[in-house]
Amino acid sequence: MWQTAIWSLIGGALLAGTYSLWRSLWIFKQPVESPRLKQISGYVAEGAMAFLFKEYQVLFPFIIIVGIFLWLSNSGDLKYQALTFALGAFCSALSGFIGMKVATAANSRTTHAAQSGIAQALKVSFAGGTVMGMTVVGLAMFGIFVVLFLASVFLGTTQAAIAITMQILAGFSLGASTIALFARVGGGIFTKAADVGADLVGKVEAGIPEDDHRNPAVIADNVGDNVGDVAGMGADLFESFVGSLIGTMILGITLGGVSSQMQINLAALPLILVAVGAVASLLGIFFVRLKPGKSPQVALNRGTFGAAALAAVLNYFIINFLLGDQTVPNPFNLAWISSLGNANLFLAVVIGLIAGISIGLLTEFFTGTNTKPVNAIVKACETGAATNLITGMGMGMLSSFPPILVIGASILLSYGLAGLYGMALAALGMLVTLGIQLAVDAYGPIADNAGGLAEMCEFPPEVRQVTDKLDAVGNTTAAIGKGFAIGSAALTALILFAAFQQSLGLAPGRFNLLDPLVITGLFLGAAIPYLFSSLSMMAIGKSAFDMIEEVRRQFREKPGILEGKDIPDYNRCVSISTESAIRQMILPGLIAALTPVIVGFTGGVEMLMGLLAGVTVSGVVLAVFMSNSGGAWDNAKKMIEERKGGKGSEAHKAAVVGDTVGDPFKDTAGPAINILIKLMAVVSLVIAPLLKTYWRL
Amino acid sequence: MWQTAIWSLIGGALLAGTYSLWRSLWIFKQPVESPRLKQISGYVAEGAMAFLFKEYQVLFPFIIIVGIFLWLSNSGDLKYQALTFALGAFCSALSGFIGMKVATAANSRTTHAAQSGIAQALKVSFAGGTVMGMTVVGLAMFGIFVVLFLASVFLGTTQAAIAITMQILAGFSLGASTIALFARVGGGIFTKAADVGADLVGKVEAGIPEDDHRNPAVIADNVGDNVGDVAGMGADLFESFVGSLIGTMILGITLGGVSSQMQINLAALPLILVAVGAVASLLGIFFVRLKPGKSPQVALNRGTFGAAALAAVLNYFIINFLLGDQTVPNPFNLAWISSLGNANLFLAVVIGLIAGISIGLLTEFFTGTNTKPVNAIVKACETGAATNLITGMGMGMLSSFPPILVIGASILLSYGLAGLYGMALAALGMLVTLGIQLAVDAYGPIADNAGGLAEMCEFPPEVRQVTDKLDAVGNTTAAIGKGFAIGSAALTALILFAAFQQSLGLAPGRFNLLDPLVITGLFLGAAIPYLFSSLSMMAIGKSAFDMIEEVRRQFREKPGILEGKDIPDYNRCVSISTESAIRQMILPGLIAALTPVIVGFTGGVEMLMGLLAGVTVSGVVLAVFMSNSGGAWDNAKKMIEERKGGKGSEAHKAAVVGDTVGDPFKDTAGPAINILIKLMAVVSLVIAPLLKTYWRL
Repeated sequence: MWQTAIWSLIGGALLAGTYSLWRSLWIFKQPVESPRLKQISGYVAEGAMAFLFKEYQVLFPFIIIVGIFLWLSNSGDLKYQALTFALGAFCSALSGFIGMKVATAANSRTTHAAQSGIAQALKVSFAGGTVMGMTVVGLAMFGIFVVLFLASVFLGTTQAAIAITMQILAGFSLGASTIALFARVGGGIFTKAADVGADLVGKVEAGIPEDDHRNPAVIADNVGDNVGDVAGMGADLFESFVGSLIGTMILGITLGGVSSQMQINLAALPLILVAVGAVASLLGIFFVRLKPGKSPQVALNRGTFGAAALAAVLNYFIINFLLGDQTVPNPFNLAWISSLGNANLFLAVVIGLIAGISIGLLTEFFTGTNTKPVNAIVKACETGAATNLITGMGMGMLSSFPPILVIGASILLSYGLAGLYGMALAALGMLVTLGIQLAVDAYGPIADNAGGLAEMCEFPPEVRQVTDKLDAVGNTTAAIGKGFAIGSAALTALILFAAFQQSLGLAPGRFNLLDPLVITGLFLGAAIPYLFSSLSMMAIGKSAFDMIEEVRRQFREKPGILEGKDIPDYNRCVSISTESAIRQMILPGLIAALTPVIVGFTGGVEMLMGLLAGVTVSGVVLAVFMSNSGGAWDNAKKMIEERKGGKGSEAHKAAVVGDTVGDPFKDTAGPAINILIKLMAVVSLVIAPLLKTYWRL
Repeated sequence: MWQTAIWSLIGGALLAGTYSLWRSLWIFKQPVESPRLKQISGYVAEGAMAFLFKEYQVLFPFIIIVGIFLWLSNSGDLKYQALTFALGAFCSALSGFIGMKVATAANSRTTHAAQSGIAQALKVSFAGGTVMGMTVVGLAMFGIFVVLFLASVFLGTTQAAIAITMQILAGFSLGASTIALFARVGGGIFTKAADVGADLVGKVEAGIPEDDHRNPAVIADNVGDNVGDVAGMGADLFESFVGSLIGTMILGITLGGVSSQMQINLAALPLILVAVGAVASLLGIFFVRLKPGKSPQVALNRGTFGAAALAAVLNYFIINFLLGDQTVPNPFNLAWISSLGNANLFLAVVIGLIAGISIGLLTEFFTGTNTKPVNAIVKACETGAATNLITGMGMGMLSSFPPILVIGASILLSYGLAGLYGMALAALGMLVTLGIQLAVDAYGPIADNAGGLAEMCEFPPEVRQVTDKLDAVGNTTAAIGKGFAIGSAALTALILFAAFQQSLGLAPGRFNLLDPLVITGLFLGAAIPYLFSSLSMMAIGKSAFDMIEEVRRQFREKPGILEGKDIPDYNRCVSISTESAIRQMILPGLIAALTPVIVGFTGGVEMLMGLLAGVTVSGVVLAVFMSNSGGAWDNAKKMIEERKGGKGSEAHKAAVVGDTVGDPFKDTAGPAINILIKLMAVVSLVIAPLLKTYWRL
């Protein structure tokens, strides 16, 4: 079965890769025509690539150093962690590169397509999203295949060999997490610094509209949307996908109370599930076709839910077929669960799916247009910025509670069904159809950026209306995507955490809440997300300040810019954002990567376990609070703008303050916490063998 | 030794009580003279009392119901928990009543005294504070004495009898916590609703100055300062004092590995320490005397630090004298600690003291006038409200990290010295000189309110300057007080938490981080402070709205008010705030009180332990973040106002938004979390025997 799993993995990877290639070629073949559009979108594409290269340049030595450290500090086969680490980083970076390349190409082609209506614009922008989605899934599966294949040749396929392979594979996950963290933080700082800088000087001081080509920071703003929303999100979900996959395999291969053959089967199962998920995603993509007069929402939902349902049905048969009458015992020995046979594993996957969708719907309720909470925020805007902020934060805090109930329920149910392995399957269940989920997530920013290009190139307003409509739908689907991202981050962190404990091979009772080391770790862990958010929020403040100075300087030194006679120096703004973002992503990144190492080697494994638990629970709540407050403020502002006489009113001014505060909340600090909690768990997993030696456990 | 402890307790209580009585009489004897001042301060005193009575009226049936529940659900001697519960609630309520009565009397007398200079004004306002402080300490000791004395007569003084007595005494702590929670939440909602309402209509719409007697909400605002800052804080620290005292006794009487005589001695020790602490506080109070030309800060510091040093020295001798060569073993068996003999206990107390002061100094650094963080916020105000908010929240989040390091270090060090008992002593160490700490805390609001009265009664500006100077010093001392409050809340929650586990008598390994019930509990616990804060923040929004409507109505219906010809209906505003606050304190209060019960009886003790740990770590970080952000915004606003041309500038407007957002952060939600975490732990402790029976543990 192990061989079957490996081959189905490469099968899925090749399928996804072929699709991506075919679809990319199609996108590049689409016309752009307008020379102005070509020129401006060229600037954006160049700027995005420049940022990416610069970022990778900074990360390259870091990856090498960590790789050398892994090689030197480990012994025996575990040395290969260094190579899988580099491979994981490479696959994540490559998928970011491809996704960005295609997304920036799709932007301008969507702008062009929007001239002939919404159906065509959806087709192009969604095609860009699917390339992103299938590239992420394909490269993740491909990278893992390479490791597993080589390991099966050189180490063999016995239970013991696979167990070692899994620890080696943890390096792959670490590589992916490292790139993801820096991409999220760096991209997040870039996009918000450019955004705030462009708005404060252009809109407020110079009085020119948003996305006006006279604003020197406008290209940087657009580049930021690509590097933050497209590349950042891709890296984030690449990491979740890899992390939950590897975590599940580790929990499968180390599961107690079953035969070693069964352990191998349980480690193989997740591979087959994701391969089948990739096929289901591909089929789902073909369901997305806009019928005349129907909303794009309907088309997208058909694709996403169709793929999810298909994956669920296929999972049922696969689990049945592969495991036969072998079962994973349920930890509470409940007779009715035992009587389900191996359908308990299927149900665990379904629980994950349902939990992801539920959190998504909750997110939509708390942040969507015209919902009760957002209406309350709109009303609060009427009494000023202060009441808007108090209400928005109050709602954001409130909104973090229901998702925690969902996460708690899915932990208990999936654990009840099949123990830690069941919990891991639930996490994986959220991500099996990642290919189409990410496609639906990524098309929104593409459409949004297409709208920005239309504005900058002075296309007729109908074009912007088409992209706005697509963008509005994108906000809703993005809310559901966020639910999956946060839910899967929470569960993935937990399974990596459980995998860490399995790797240490210590009794669970050792990590108890009465141990002051555990308690101290919990305290420290609870505080880390705040420290991390604080650093990234203050980094935005500093970068935006540099940008403001630069835009002011250009307006001052070349008065012709505002009159439309001089061309602003877009490039300078892009480099300022780039340099500033890259310089300031380092400290928060290092804190995330090094804290588990420092705590593990000074405070011991008990404190480290406490740290991971603390980071996870505190981080998830804080992330939901920040993301939802930010989302709700954003939509409250949009609702006020859509009213008659909304723009420029006192209520609008109050709403703008909320939206500006919410930007770093929802686009930088909030999503970065998702990665923070997974990265800290995976770092711990990787250093587990070293800790064992060091502390003589 | 048990008898000695009981008698020293009543000795300390009587001393504190006598002092309070003597000082109260002195305050009431001070002159007020101005009929206007008499009248206005009469309104405030009446309003405060009306609120307190109304609050107690609502709480009375709640106390009765919980009492009956405790009586019916427990068996044997544990039934008496119902009575100690009622007694704890009564003592806390009574100390709130006395403190408030004296504080409102001290307000007007301070206004009068301020006419003859700062020394006299400090004397009167500090006298008000000392009555509050010594009443809280005295009534807490008196209440515990009553329980211990009766128990020693009826149950005896064997180790087993004392162990039962301790469980009965947990009811006392629960009673105190219940009153404290509602006082903090109700008072916090009252004060901020009145404040926001008075400011938004009076200052912003009608353009009259702050504290102007024409504003119908001005009395309510002043009442709010009394019920929120004075009564709320008193109840908070009453509860911490009682909680840490009882928690330490429980951990002493159940300590493993020592003789039962030693267990009794360890349960007795905390009682003697606090009795001696009361004496040290009293002596410290006599050190507070303002020398001509010196700052009040110097006088207050001499008192606080003098009392702390005195208490520390006395503690050393007491521990030595009482325990002789008996020692509490250190859990890591470190030779150098063993060689200290029982000085390890003394060092644990000192660690608590140092930790409290350190957190206080950190608070001052992050929120004080002219510090680096606050200067950054002042600078951010120049680019508008949004950057002010982002920077303020960033700084607040950053500021929550260092105190966590202090708390973590004090947990590890005190545990290393003497195990859980050492940790408990550290918590107690923060509070031994509570009498003077609270005096120094409470005098600030008294001086502040005196200033408000001076404004309302149109006293010459010099009077206001004197009270402002006292208030400014009060802000710094209050920062240190906040450090003690949050630090002691964290440690007290932990020891109550440990006491809960001792009461259950289950192995610590049962509560491990790999158990999905524990993990779910942690998640839920981490989310509760957010839910709780959200509810209290939104309650302020609603109450302020009612107040705004009422003030607008009065201005509209009686135009004479603004011209100074008509007297506004102050009473109506006070009742609106009262009713609104009391109605809205119930839901957050019930959530805090019932969550542990619901989780304990449905999810089990593992989930409940997880819940308590999650609430504590997430709550402490969130509370520090909110309190410090709020404090920093407040001082940033003050700094801008003190500049030339500061008032009315754009930067000032931005600062006002920050301050308004910060108000519910720092005066309602933040401090209420302190109580939340302790209350949930003490509820769990009280229901421990019921849970044991229910789950057949």
